[in-house]
Amino acid sequence: MGEKRDYHMSPEEFRHWGYQTIDWLVDYRQKVEEFPVLSQVEPGDIRAKLPSNAPQQGESFAEILADIDRIIMPGITHWQSPNFFGFFPAGASAPSILGELMSSGLGVLGFLWATSPACTELETHVLDWLIDMLGLPDHFKSSTGGGGVLQDTACSAAIVSVIAAREQKKADINRLVAYTSTEAHSSLEKAVRISGLRPENLRLIDIDHHYAMSPDRLEQAIKADLQAGLIPCYLAGTVGTTSSNAIDPLTRLGAIAQKYDLWFHVDGAMSGTAALCPELRWIHQGVELADSYCFNPHKWMMTNFDCNCFYVRDRLKLTNALSIMPEYLKNEATDSGKVIDYRDWQLPLSRRFKSLKLWFVIRHYGIEGLQHYVRKHVALAKEFAQWVKLDPAFKLVVNPPLNLVCFRHQGGDLINQEILNRINESGTMYLTSTKLDQKLTLRMAIGQAETERENVKLAWKLIRSVAEKIINDNDFTCQISTEKAA
Amino acid sequence: MGEKRDYHMSPEEFRHWGYQTIDWLVDYRQKVEEFPVLSQVEPGDIRAKLPSNAPQQGESFAEILADIDRIIMPGITHWQSPNFFGFFPAGASAPSILGELMSSGLGVLGFLWATSPACTELETHVLDWLIDMLGLPDHFKSSTGGGGVLQDTACSAAIVSVIAAREQKKADINRLVAYTSTEAHSSLEKAVRISGLRPENLRLIDIDHHYAMSPDRLEQAIKADLQAGLIPCYLAGTVGTTSSNAIDPLTRLGAIAQKYDLWFHVDGAMSGTAALCPELRWIHQGVELADSYCFNPHKWMMTNFDCNCFYVRDRLKLTNALSIMPEYLKNEATDSGKVIDYRDWQLPLSRRFKSLKLWFVIRHYGIEGLQHYVRKHVALAKEFAQWVKLDPAFKLVVNPPLNLVCFRHQGGDLINQEILNRINESGTMYLTSTKLDQKLTLRMAIGQAETERENVKLAWKLIRSVAEKIINDNDFTCQISTEKAA
Repeated sequence: MGEKRDYHMSPEEFRHWGYQTIDWLVDYRQKVEEFPVLSQVEPGDIRAKLPSNAPQQGESFAEILADIDRIIMPGITHWQSPNFFGFFPAGASAPSILGELMSSGLGVLGFLWATSPACTELETHVLDWLIDMLGLPDHFKSSTGGGGVLQDTACSAAIVSVIAAREQKKADINRLVAYTSTEAHSSLEKAVRISGLRPENLRLIDIDHHYAMSPDRLEQAIKADLQAGLIPCYLAGTVGTTSSNAIDPLTRLGAIAQKYDLWFHVDGAMSGTAALCPELRWIHQGVELADSYCFNPHKWMMTNFDCNCFYVRDRLKLTNALSIMPEYLKNEATDSGKVIDYRDWQLPLSRRFKSLKLWFVIRHYGIEGLQHYVRKHVALAKEFAQWVKLDPAFKLVVNPPLNLVCFRHQGGDLINQEILNRINESGTMYLTSTKLDQKLTLRMAIGQAETERENVKLAWKLIRSVAEKIINDNDFTCQISTEKAA
Repeated sequence: MGEKRDYHMSPEEFRHWGYQTIDWLVDYRQKVEEFPVLSQVEPGDIRAKLPSNAPQQGESFAEILADIDRIIMPGITHWQSPNFFGFFPAGASAPSILGELMSSGLGVLGFLWATSPACTELETHVLDWLIDMLGLPDHFKSSTGGGGVLQDTACSAAIVSVIAAREQKKADINRLVAYTSTEAHSSLEKAVRISGLRPENLRLIDIDHHYAMSPDRLEQAIKADLQAGLIPCYLAGTVGTTSSNAIDPLTRLGAIAQKYDLWFHVDGAMSGTAALCPELRWIHQGVELADSYCFNPHKWMMTNFDCNCFYVRDRLKLTNALSIMPEYLKNEATDSGKVIDYRDWQLPLSRRFKSLKLWFVIRHYGIEGLQHYVRKHVALAKEFAQWVKLDPAFKLVVNPPLNLVCFRHQGGDLINQEILNRINESGTMYLTSTKLDQKLTLRMAIGQAETERENVKLAWKLIRSVAEKIINDNDFTCQISTEKAA
């Protein structure tokens, strides 16, 4: 043991560097608009600045912090910028960051109730709160046979729901069939693949003209599969699809799921948060027919990644599918049957104290504060859509139900791609795209914590002026004509 | 938009409450030994203190912090206590906590390279560093066809490796067989179940007298399965089993895996960290035959949960199994083929900037600092084992290869269970148990960041004195005789 040296930070060093890290973040968030929203580095640029070997001796924390500015920042795409309109909002509010900090510092693992009862009970409690906050069905509450649990993402929620569905059927896995729409998130396809169902037994059901799943087509597909001797097993509906924010007709889908005995999962990843506002709860109409439901506070509810709320109507179906009890996990509390052990509700065994940040967020903002931002973002999306509508050079592809505006320039895919490239290369804002009706479509997701009307106005101004420049750019339009001719 | 009120923390509030949270954690870590290590609450105690509804209006952060002390702390089992000897060490060092804080504050999602190049490139780089730091085979490096990625846990690493193995076989899933030892972690069984292989097609291979998997038994099982028309597909070996820290004979297992064309996964969850020290690298002998390998810096390498390093020899086998490319994720960098998109290496799509904390830890401690703690803990375990050996009332069940000591009182299961109960109820330390040779066995895992020789000495003193008290407790020994007679 000879050596006496202690390599840990002393309490005073921890305090000092803790303060410095907080200062760095406060500073970062105040100047976030100064950075290009989309990182402008080339592949390999970041690695090129890193030494090829780990240091033999420890380095000072001052150097480490300095390297955040020097090495890391150029490679950051600024999800926290109010000019980030890509993919989905990933609101990391200050209270959520401090909740995560508290969780890291306590450093407890909550795989069993006993390994930190507060970790399990706060999670159960806050997930029950959210049922009332969103007006979700009572049968998802822990006091019934149902219950909620935090997963990392809607992807993992999809995986565990497919597995519960698969195990419930007790049938040959090769004959099981899963259904979702052509517009559902790719995580559904991934979940089906992960859980071992045959990829060719996933049916992507056609959509209607609102990009929502067609119940008639669904029922036709189920009937055809039954006829072919297959076993319909799982249906996933979406509240707010990734591409267009379409809301699947849950009531009709749920009725079909009941009729044919399918597990009905509803994915409300981004859009579920809207149900905080009573006037937007129509999005969940029919969710009472679901066997499982999830949404992501880490998208539109001011909570830093990761945080997915997953609910099941019958928790035994979930835990029966996922529970394994080895000798080294046996304990009195579990044996008593009086406690929840969340390890049986998720893919991994271990889990961190994730509900702390959710608790911090809900308590800091209150229901009222969270509603305020949903309403603000929805209003901004409607206003943006209005501007698009009034501009003859652009087409509003979907009348936005919530906070996602899908639109395109009337000039075709190449022009839209060029708009996207130039805007993102400018660093002023960040926008992503999708395809709707086989046409490139721009997606403007409004929901960052700090996005104001001014940011949205400037975004529209930039989009228009970039589009105009492209149209007036002879080289580019020549290039398009050549490509079209080819 | 009428309402003007902003519900966010102002920059100055964020700074103030950030400092307060840091202060709280510094304080907590200094007084952690004052708390009972195992939480002493009863089921429902924590929930009973929480209001039944979420607050309509936001609350002050001062109240939230006060409730950590009032509501949460009684329900914490103190994994960060130097007297925590249960399950496995979960070292959450100050640098790792600050790395996690930085990651939460930056709030970026790294599912694609483009969504924050630094998130992907730092991860690739640090995982390459670790290959040299642990003396792992070069073919796991990103510059070869292999590569490393951070998973949340060894469970998820097991799942993705089973899926890669399954997809590689391109055969009827119902005929695929997986192999591991009776002493492997339950996550292997869970991974096999999740990925849709038949539960009855998991073979738990017998162990030798060191609790390590018997290669002969493995080969017999494979031959029998082939004879029965089944398809051997996957083998998981363990470096440091959960119950006894046994090291499976990787060289022989790897040879068998090659002979019969099985995917060979090696799980070094806790013990892999030992390879930081050249004199302990023997634990990985044969790992060069593995198709995939993982270990958890969040166990014994000063990094807060979650942080699992997962390596594959052929990354295409992994990404082919997990990649799905929908329209809304298409981007120039991905199309160029010059970048890694880690979403294709893991179960979920999204991911946080997890390598930051690992980078902070490695740079703060340096290789030397990390080695220091491994050596210290291994020496303490050897010393503790020596004390057990010298006490005729106890039996050392395994000569500890690393930092886990398995031992039992000679008096039988009921006495050992009572020792465990009384110790854990005392709150002075926390110990867990397992079964080895069908006998209840106490597990003393030494590896908490702040554990000193003094803590280990006191632990042994307490164990002995509790055992003596039980032996001298007439009521208890009568009860045992009655139960034995019954």
